[in-house]
Amino acid sequence: MIRVTVWYEYAQESGTLKEEFAEGIPQEIVEKFSSWLPQAAERIRSQYPDGLMGTLAGYLKKNPDFQVTYVNMYMPEFGLPDELLDNTDVLIYWAHVMHQAIPDSLAFKIVKRVQAGMGFIPLHSAHQSKPFTYLMGTSGSLSWREGDFCRIWTVAPAHPIARGIPEAVELCEEEMYGEPFDIPTPEETIFISWYGGGEVFRSGCTWKRGYGKIFYFQPGHETSPSYHNPYVLKIIENAVYWTAPTVWRKDFSCPNIVESPEKKRAEKG
Amino acid sequence: MIRVTVWYEYAQESGTLKEEFAEGIPQEIVEKFSSWLPQAAERIRSQYPDGLMGTLAGYLKKNPDFQVTYVNMYMPEFGLPDELLDNTDVLIYWAHVMHQAIPDSLAFKIVKRVQAGMGFIPLHSAHQSKPFTYLMGTSGSLSWREGDFCRIWTVAPAHPIARGIPEAVELCEEEMYGEPFDIPTPEETIFISWYGGGEVFRSGCTWKRGYGKIFYFQPGHETSPSYHNPYVLKIIENAVYWTAPTVWRKDFSCPNIVESPEKKRAEKG
Amino acid sequence: MIRVTVWYEYAQESGTLKEEFAEGIPQEIVEKFSSWLPQAAERIRSQYPDGLMGTLAGYLKKNPDFQVTYVNMYMPEFGLPDELLDNTDVLIYWAHVMHQAIPDSLAFKIVKRVQAGMGFIPLHSAHQSKPFTYLMGTSGSLSWREGDFCRIWTVAPAHPIARGIPEAVELCEEEMYGEPFDIPTPEETIFISWYGGGEVFRSGCTWKRGYGKIFYFQPGHETSPSYHNPYVLKIIENAVYWTAPTVWRKDFSCPNIVESPEKKRAEKG
Amino acid sequence: MIRVTVWYEYAQESGTLKEEFAEGIPQEIVEKFSSWLPQAAERIRSQYPDGLMGTLAGYLKKNPDFQVTYVNMYMPEFGLPDELLDNTDVLIYWAHVMHQAIPDSLAFKIVKRVQAGMGFIPLHSAHQSKPFTYLMGTSGSLSWREGDFCRIWTVAPAHPIARGIPEAVELCEEEMYGEPFDIPTPEETIFISWYGGGEVFRSGCTWKRGYGKIFYFQPGHETSPSYHNPYVLKIIENAVYWTAPTVWRKDFSCPNIVESPEKKRAEKG
Repeated sequence: MIRVTVWYEYAQESGTLKEEFAEGIPQEIVEKFSSWLPQAAERIRSQYPDGLMGTLAGYLKKNPDFQVTYVNMYMPEFGLPDELLDNTDVLIYWAHVMHQAIPDSLAFKIVKRVQAGMGFIPLHSAHQSKPFTYLMGTSGSLSWREGDFCRIWTVAPAHPIARGIPEAVELCEEEMYGEPFDIPTPEETIFISWYGGGEVFRSGCTWKRGYGKIFYFQPGHETSPSYHNPYVLKIIENAVYWTAPTVWRKDFSCPNIVESPEKKRAEKG
Repeated sequence: MIRVTVWYEYAQESGTLKEEFAEGIPQEIVEKFSSWLPQAAERIRSQYPDGLMGTLAGYLKKNPDFQVTYVNMYMPEFGLPDELLDNTDVLIYWAHVMHQAIPDSLAFKIVKRVQAGMGFIPLHSAHQSKPFTYLMGTSGSLSWREGDFCRIWTVAPAHPIARGIPEAVELCEEEMYGEPFDIPTPEETIFISWYGGGEVFRSGCTWKRGYGKIFYFQPGHETSPSYHNPYVLKIIENAVYWTAPTVWRKDFSCPNIVESPEKKRAEKG
Repeated sequence: MIRVTVWYEYAQESGTLKEEFAEGIPQEIVEKFSSWLPQAAERIRSQYPDGLMGTLAGYLKKNPDFQVTYVNMYMPEFGLPDELLDNTDVLIYWAHVMHQAIPDSLAFKIVKRVQAGMGFIPLHSAHQSKPFTYLMGTSGSLSWREGDFCRIWTVAPAHPIARGIPEAVELCEEEMYGEPFDIPTPEETIFISWYGGGEVFRSGCTWKRGYGKIFYFQPGHETSPSYHNPYVLKIIENAVYWTAPTVWRKDFSCPNIVESPEKKRAEKG
Repeated sequence: MIRVTVWYEYAQESGTLKEEFAEGIPQEIVEKFSSWLPQAAERIRSQYPDGLMGTLAGYLKKNPDFQVTYVNMYMPEFGLPDELLDNTDVLIYWAHVMHQAIPDSLAFKIVKRVQAGMGFIPLHSAHQSKPFTYLMGTSGSLSWREGDFCRIWTVAPAHPIARGIPEAVELCEEEMYGEPFDIPTPEETIFISWYGGGEVFRSGCTWKRGYGKIFYFQPGHETSPSYHNPYVLKIIENAVYWTAPTVWRKDFSCPNIVESPEKKRAEKG
């Protein structure tokens, strides 16, 4: 049983900016949000009656190997109290406009949990989230444009995350994310996307940090229907299996090996 | 002074199949060549009055840091006698229809010269050449289609090979090469191409083998004007600098270290 | 069920040089062999009553997930007829003095089978075997010395190949293999060995080539007891699971995509 | 001219804990420091009359290509005011007991400067410093023991950082750092160390983050004479050249490409 936590920043879907988050966000953005968030909420609802991450969580819940917990940032402790994080095997993370409202203390807890073994699947605009950029050591910057056709090419067809995925998956509408994508050289580049407007993007990449495995995946603009696409869902499901930990690191100390292995060997004779 | 050898298989440009190569090539292809090669020769001449690789060699010769030798497969010893190979710092290699006519003995000489330090720049259809696939250990397979628009994106803008190159370079016509490209995970992916027909391709990639550096670069279909594009030329020029060896390996033996470092240290006291 | 083929060059264990192999081997070595091989055979028998690879194959046979075939180079078609190779999921390969007697045609068949998905586990002196060096594109050279103490450090403890392996495994006697080891940068370095004489060695490394996975592992000098060590055996067993293919590549062609994806999309409307 | 800043935490050499740093450090360590720092200062002075980093800075100052600024944490703004950081091409960083006293704000400034192009050379105990671990996304943990013999093996002899370095460098006494070293898979592993007590360590490794290059190097325990060793000094000097930026990133924004490249191309006709 893989314990999957689906975390969502939720601001767009709620339609309002939770008061306590306003301080972490520049004033001009707060003002922009007062009109933008309600519109976003409406658009999301029309596309995703069960919610954006609700739709993804609902899909994953059908898999009997997964025990799925669906939370959001508007819940107490940002939806990720220690008890939940400490019982998460794989964290799926969607965030966009609220990155700066996440305290460093929480971001570093996630980082440490990944280093201990937790799988981490940042989706779409999580490319600039604190947990992802702190794990990568890069800015996560890229170029973007709303409303484009997207074709995802499978460049590593033998990878477990590509199992059952055709050589190309077409998304009628997705936000364009373009290169250069400021990430460390991926250990594996599984998918590269083609956009109708003329750009390319390394849209499915893996890294390891400590005992934990990471898979970034591009699709998921909140007003695009990508999380209804069976292949997008299958890729994320495959990624849950692939990032799921097989062993946890418990001790992060730097041990002082007072008695050296060679001394011990000499003593044994 | 960097000693650059530009090597070209030349069959298309000559318009005829050199008799001695016919045996390395399946009979149905030999027959196809009798009509195809003269047409190719005509098309190349209209695009490249100085020849395909002649144009590239001519450009590189203007750089006073380079000492350029331009040879082709129709010359004695396939244009690469030992004396030339042993005095080459960087080998630029364009081949397409004659891969199988290159004897393994020559391919392995090139492989070994790369392992000793020689830079290697396989261009375009050299993706399936013996030297490239023997250095990679992969088949080099890909999909293709003639006559497409190509936009090359720079995904590693800080790499020396991308120096002076804009974020995107547009080629009005190039052969489409599409993923999956069967190569080992590149150490650095510097360029990814977008094609008007809908494909993507890792079009500029690096690897190291022994002391030698390798840069594969996609553009260069024989009837496309890519080697007139100043950025394509600049990228290849940058790659000559980047792949040029700084140190050569001379001894390929596996030494038997009869007296261990620890024994020597003990003797020194 | 994983179909594991354990392949052994066998010359040392047989004690004699098979006549037909002599031609692939320099004359001075053939002469050296006439006295050396019988001695080696005696030493191996005292260490491994069931044979060197016979011992390893015997261990693997106890695993009900594995269907093990144990063959050697003295059998017809070098022990690897097409029918066997084409029904092998994971090939374990031990070779030392007979590398040059393996024809390129067989070496390239193994390479292609790996590219198609077969797992490949070259052991010990297979570092200079044709299949390994052809897959790597490097010489595989290193330094060596017989009869040293070896401590294998686990540097990637979360890797499946390290499952159940302690942080260090001690081998009372193993042949020293020392850096620099001429290999492409490993995708994962799982083990690094320490030798009593003062050297270090990247002793457990992985790469991918096409659909296939490769794990090189250092221990296994024919007169050292390493294949009696439970951790060495466990590492190889883990590697069989890890390199076992999940999907096979069937078509190695370069398809001409006459009708582009974008044209098809436009036609669909 | 490469602008090199050598940064040192200095606490051990000063012999006292600067009052304002005490708050960042657990109380029991503050107490321990009151007796430990003066002793450390004495030991360092006997080994390095010009100071630990003073010795390294003095060596680098002799290179006419370098403009060296030597600062320490006890200076205003931790020795790294914005004006200095913004005029640094390569930052050499030695820290050990004061990691937690460095504010995140400064650590993130260093991270961002690396992403913009600055070379970064964390030495020895900087393996757990904030800038290094924030760039890596890993804990940097390892095992350790004071006072061991160390032999550094060159595993990538063709790398520019290994230029002029023999295949092995012996250090009569260095602190042992042992695997597993919790770092992302290095892009290049240039050196691996052997310790008399029985451990191994990836002691010289490179990564890229954004436009910046990073080289971690192990030697430099404050009471070991390693920074008098000509090869250790040469390796750091080589690393300054290798990490020096050739191009700076100025804009970290995520541009909205309102008008797509394809729209622009269509408009051009």
